[in-house]
Amino acid sequence: MPSPFSFALLATADGARLGELRTSHGVVQTPAFMPVGTQGSVKAMRQRDLEEAGAQIILGNTYHLYLRPGDTLIARRGGLHRFIGWQHPILTDSGGYQVFSLAERRRIDERGAEFRSHLDGSVHMLSPETAVDIQARLGSDIAMVLDECLAYPASRDETAASMERSVRWAARCRAQFASVRDGAGPVVGATNPGQAQFGIVQGGVFQDLRDRSADETIAIGFEGYAIGGLSVGEPLDLMYVVVSETARRLPEHQPRYLMGAGTPQDLVECVARGIDMFDCVLPTRNARNGQLFTSQGRINIKNARYAEDESPLDPSCGCYTCRTHSRAYLRHLYLAGEMTAGVLNTLHNLTFYLDTMRRIREAISLRAFDKFRQEFLRSASRLSLDS
Amino acid sequence: MPSPFSFALLATADGARLGELRTSHGVVQTPAFMPVGTQGSVKAMRQRDLEEAGAQIILGNTYHLYLRPGDTLIARRGGLHRFIGWQHPILTDSGGYQVFSLAERRRIDERGAEFRSHLDGSVHMLSPETAVDIQARLGSDIAMVLDECLAYPASRDETAASMERSVRWAARCRAQFASVRDGAGPVVGATNPGQAQFGIVQGGVFQDLRDRSADETIAIGFEGYAIGGLSVGEPLDLMYVVVSETARRLPEHQPRYLMGAGTPQDLVECVARGIDMFDCVLPTRNARNGQLFTSQGRINIKNARYAEDESPLDPSCGCYTCRTHSRAYLRHLYLAGEMTAGVLNTLHNLTFYLDTMRRIREAISLRAFDKFRQEFLRSASRLSLDS
Repeated sequence: MPSPFSFALLATADGARLGELRTSHGVVQTPAFMPVGTQGSVKAMRQRDLEEAGAQIILGNTYHLYLRPGDTLIARRGGLHRFIGWQHPILTDSGGYQVFSLAERRRIDERGAEFRSHLDGSVHMLSPETAVDIQARLGSDIAMVLDECLAYPASRDETAASMERSVRWAARCRAQFASVRDGAGPVVGATNPGQAQFGIVQGGVFQDLRDRSADETIAIGFEGYAIGGLSVGEPLDLMYVVVSETARRLPEHQPRYLMGAGTPQDLVECVARGIDMFDCVLPTRNARNGQLFTSQGRINIKNARYAEDESPLDPSCGCYTCRTHSRAYLRHLYLAGEMTAGVLNTLHNLTFYLDTMRRIREAISLRAFDKFRQEFLRSASRLSLDS
Repeated sequence: MPSPFSFALLATADGARLGELRTSHGVVQTPAFMPVGTQGSVKAMRQRDLEEAGAQIILGNTYHLYLRPGDTLIARRGGLHRFIGWQHPILTDSGGYQVFSLAERRRIDERGAEFRSHLDGSVHMLSPETAVDIQARLGSDIAMVLDECLAYPASRDETAASMERSVRWAARCRAQFASVRDGAGPVVGATNPGQAQFGIVQGGVFQDLRDRSADETIAIGFEGYAIGGLSVGEPLDLMYVVVSETARRLPEHQPRYLMGAGTPQDLVECVARGIDMFDCVLPTRNARNGQLFTSQGRINIKNARYAEDESPLDPSCGCYTCRTHSRAYLRHLYLAGEMTAGVLNTLHNLTFYLDTMRRIREAISLRAFDKFRQEFLRSASRLSLDS
C-alpha cells in the first residue's frame, strides 16, 4: 500500500521552496507555520478560529498529552485528531524537549530519559521506542524521533557525544516505527496508518558535526528531516549560517523543518535558506502577554500611547480583531485582565504569522521571493514601535 | 422629538408576556436575558460569539467602567457601544451594587456613597447625580437609577428606611436624567440621546414596603421598572412570591426587569410571573468553573465519569461546542487549565440561556407557555447529573 504521505517540490525562487505536503488528513502548502497546540489546544483558540486564521497543520506536544489525558485514553477515543476535533494534519514532537526543559529530576542514559512528571511527581521512562509508541497512539500525521537536546552553549565534545547518541536513538526510533507500521511488534494501538516519521539533525553550531549528523540521519532514511537544537540562545547570525549549511545537505525532494523558530523575520530568512516548515510558541505566548506582531513592527498593547488610539492593531490585517476593535479597546481588555484579550490577541498574532507564510508562498510562486523578503524586512524594522 | 425607546406588549399567556423593546441600537425581543459584560467584555466571549449565541442586549457594569478605563475616556471614544464594538442595545447598572459589594471602606449617607476603588484605593463619590452622568457618558440604551442595596436578611425597619432613601435617590436620578437630556445642566458629554432610564423597586421581602416602593417609583415616572434586592440569599419560594406580587403592581405597558436572577428555572418561573428582562453572571461564571447547564440538568465537567464520554455536552444543543466536541475533550481542557475551556464552556452556557429565552418566547406566541414551563422544569430536574 503506498503511503498517504508525500511531498512535492513545486517551485524554487531565490533559495526558497514552494511545496505541498500530502497526509491522510489533508494537504499542507509549504512553507508552512504550525501553531503550537501544547495540550491538545492552541491556547485561547478554538479549532475553527485556527482554520479562520489560515492554519493547515498544528503541533501537539507528546510530553503533555502522554501525561494528561494520556496517550492510551486518546487512542481509545480514536486518536488525537478525533479527540480534539481537528480534522487537518497534526505533527507531534517526541516529548524529549519538554523532558529536558520541564520535567523534574531527569536521568538520561543510552536507554532514554527517566523523569518525574511536573504534574504529580510520578516516574516515567521516555525511550526512543516509547516515544514512537506514544506518537503512534496519538496518531499524528508526522511523528518526530527522540533526540537529545543540549543547552547552549555546549562544548564541541559534549555536542559530538550527544549528536552521536541522537543518531543511535534515531535508528532505534526508525526500527520501532517500522515494527509498529508492519504490525511486527507488540500491539501499541496505533491510530493512524498513514503516519510519517521525521529524523532530526543535531550538532549544535559545529558545522562538521551537523554534516555528520545529517549524513547519518539521512542514511537511516525518514520521510522528512528537521533541524533541531537551534533557537536556543545562539547568536542569530550563527543560527542562519547553520540553517543555511545544514539545509543544503538535506534531500531536495523531502520536507525540511526548522524546530522552534522563530520571529517573523526568522521565518522569512530561513525560508530563504531552504526551510519548509516551522513551529514556535512566540505568536501565541506573546499574544497572551500583550506583545503583538504587525506589518509595521511590534506593539506592546499595554503602552499608554494606545489608551485612546482608535486605529486597528494592524491596518494591513484582515483578522476579526483588526476588523472589529481599536487599540484602545484591546489595551483596556489587556489591562483589565479579560480573557477576551488573550483570545483577540492570539487570533491576530496567528493570523499575522499565517498570512506571512501565505505571502511567502505567493512570492515564491511569482518568482519574486527576494523582492518580498527585502520589503518585508524593511517594513518590519521601519517602526519597531515598542521595542 | 419622540424617544427612540419604546416597549410593545405583543401577547400574554399564562401570566407570561411577549414583548418588543425598541432602542436606538435595535430591537430586543422579550422575555430577554442579558449576558453580563462587566468590564466592557462578556468574559471569554467576542462580540460575534455573543451574536452567534443569540444575545440581543448585554449589560455593562458602571462601577468597573467608571474606574477603568473611565467613563470620560469612553465618552471621548464615542460611547460604550463604539468603544467595545457592540452595535446592539446595552443596559448599564448604576454602579451601586458593586460599590456595596466590591469597593473598600464605603460610607453611605443621603448624598450617596463614598468609596475607595478596589483597584488602587483612590477615593470616589457615587451619588444619584453622578450615577446618571456616568451612564450618560457611557451612552447605554437603558440606564438604571442608583439605589441602596441591603444585605439579606435585614429587619423591617432597616428595609423601610433604605427603601425610602432609594425612592428619594430615584427622584434625584430622574431630575438629573431630565436635566442631562434637556441640556439644562452642566455639560456631561452624553453619548446617546436615545437613552432611557429605569426605576428600581426595593423593599426586601416585605410586601407592603414593596408596594409602597413600587407606587412611589411609578409616581416619579420611568421608561421601565426593575425589581431589585432579590436573589440575595432569600428562600426561592419567597423570591417568587415577591416577584409575583410586585410585578402585578407595575404598569402593564412598560418593561419589567428582575435584577440579578437567576438559574434557568428561575427565568422560566419569573417569566410566568410577568417579568420581561433578566441578567445574571451564573451562565458565564459557572462556565469558567466547569459547571454547565444542559437540557437534562447540570454537568460538572471535571467529574471523572466524563473522562471518556464521547457524547456532546447537551445533545439538544446546537452551539459550536456541542456540535464539535465531546465531554471527554472538554473535561481534558478544563483539567489542563486551558483558556479554551472557558471559551467553549461560556459559549455553551450562554447559548443554553439564550435558547431557553427563545423557546419561552415561542411558547408564549403559541399560547402554550404553561405547557412549556411544566416540561422544562420536569426535564431540567429529571437528571440533575452532578448536583
